[in-house]
Amino acid sequence: MDKSNNKIEVFAPATVANISCGFDVLGLCLDSIGDKMIISKKNKKGISISKIKGFDLPIDVRQNAAGMAARALLKNIKTDYGFDIKIFKKIKPGSGIGSSAASSAGAVVGINELLGNPFTKNELIDFAREGERIACGSPIADNVAPAILGGFTLVKSTNPLQVISLPSIYRLFVVILHPQIEIKTADARAVLPEKILLKDAVTQWANVGSLVSSLYTKDYDLFALSLQDVVVEPYRSKLIPFFKETKEIAIQNGALGYGISGSGPATFAICKGRENAKIIKEKLSEFYIAKKKIPFKIYISKINRKGIKTKMI
Amino acid sequence: MDKSNNKIEVFAPATVANISCGFDVLGLCLDSIGDKMIISKKNKKGISISKIKGFDLPIDVRQNAAGMAARALLKNIKTDYGFDIKIFKKIKPGSGIGSSAASSAGAVVGINELLGNPFTKNELIDFAREGERIACGSPIADNVAPAILGGFTLVKSTNPLQVISLPSIYRLFVVILHPQIEIKTADARAVLPEKILLKDAVTQWANVGSLVSSLYTKDYDLFALSLQDVVVEPYRSKLIPFFKETKEIAIQNGALGYGISGSGPATFAICKGRENAKIIKEKLSEFYIAKKKIPFKIYISKINRKGIKTKMI
Repeated sequence: MDKSNNKIEVFAPATVANISCGFDVLGLCLDSIGDKMIISKKNKKGISISKIKGFDLPIDVRQNAAGMAARALLKNIKTDYGFDIKIFKKIKPGSGIGSSAASSAGAVVGINELLGNPFTKNELIDFAREGERIACGSPIADNVAPAILGGFTLVKSTNPLQVISLPSIYRLFVVILHPQIEIKTADARAVLPEKILLKDAVTQWANVGSLVSSLYTKDYDLFALSLQDVVVEPYRSKLIPFFKETKEIAIQNGALGYGISGSGPATFAICKGRENAKIIKEKLSEFYIAKKKIPFKIYISKINRKGIKTKMI
Repeated sequence: MDKSNNKIEVFAPATVANISCGFDVLGLCLDSIGDKMIISKKNKKGISISKIKGFDLPIDVRQNAAGMAARALLKNIKTDYGFDIKIFKKIKPGSGIGSSAASSAGAVVGINELLGNPFTKNELIDFAREGERIACGSPIADNVAPAILGGFTLVKSTNPLQVISLPSIYRLFVVILHPQIEIKTADARAVLPEKILLKDAVTQWANVGSLVSSLYTKDYDLFALSLQDVVVEPYRSKLIPFFKETKEIAIQNGALGYGISGSGPATFAICKGRENAKIIKEKLSEFYIAKKKIPFKIYISKINRKGIKTKMI
């Protein structure tokens, strides 16, 4: 076993999937919200998880997103040693901001670096999806892709996996409002209809097209106009406390857009500039405090263009 | 009446709407296929159509796409004179390559120039849509937008109208295969279901997003992979003779994509480079000639980045 580079600290960021118009395809990477992981080489082959702090998650590798992602990676390379993972979770599972994706993505990126980076980012996304398979029931890529690539991403196809890195607009900040209730991804899927109106689908793909265009042309107005969801939000917003009210507050206070992060219950406001994000954070907090019903957390993050951050320790 | 600039010749190009993945939102402008129009100022206010050559179309202004588009424009400006339109149609009505859109767009662009360009291109698209309303039954913009703006366009919304000009990739050529049968837009609409599978919609909006991205990054491979239509083509292709066979010929001979132009019956192959377009034109012609069943026309065009072309005469 190579004695150098045998322990790495990983910042595994939260992510916002869907971004209103792009159900199952668009995602963005957050910066100041995420888990810490410590991954070490060990003499025994295979993967172990020796510690999970923060939330009660299965330490059994085969039941754990990070574990299964790491195993998927190891199936594709020969090593005479293994890896131990310690996870310090800060992203609550079932929050809608990519908790399992952070663990899956963090594990494979960390191990890849300890191995001297034999895999491409696209391959890492493919391995990380195996973590999503155990956590969410299907190998979705719309959170692991932005976690690994950073910035805005588009999952063009899942079979075979093809992911596009989109440019970021500089001055975007995201406010995440997280009511402390749990919505299981499976339940959030169950409320969606199997079929949707063709005319709504047309509205949605026009918005996906214009959102992508707005990122290339750095057109904030078009970006804001594209952040519409006529397909999923009408169903899922019913599962989220005060969605309508908080959306109104965010938009009235200048947010470029407001929607459900992934399958919720977290919601996101995208804002131009940190000052506007601060105002929206304050207004949303005031509203939630006044309601006195549901505990909540609220964060501000810039867009994280790098994705997962690592340092050898 | 200003005696200068009182007669203009207009080249009104054919267009391809939908471009496989972008039903009702994407379009592109062709170059070597189009109508000629002559528009002249006249003393009497209002619009007249004094000649239509090429195809049998209503000369009554209120029944004619160019006439109604021109009237929509004139409602928004005061003039003490009128305009006469002569139309030399080369694009067969009901072909699927924007015959009515060419007339509508040509009329408003020509008149706008004779007036000294008081209107923006976006306003002109809005007027031209009134021609589409009389010709197709609804004020669609996916042909008039590329006819007026040139290149690739995305109709982000129709109410209010918002259209985005997308960048073009340099070396693209389009082969148009036009079996000489007529499919009415209304009939082509009638075969479409009111609802579609959400999973198909997701595939489609991933493709719209990646197509838009590919135009900005000039990524021919991604462009080709994005030219998929899982929503409309399965229905409409049944109306088009030998669709499956001709698609196979085009793709096997290197076309980046092949699909139904607008509501058909014209189909398009998008090719990288003129040489490849020539090969595909030849192979498709051979196939159609061997079938001996249906007369057809076939054209090669580059992407027309300028849109409608005019010269004062």
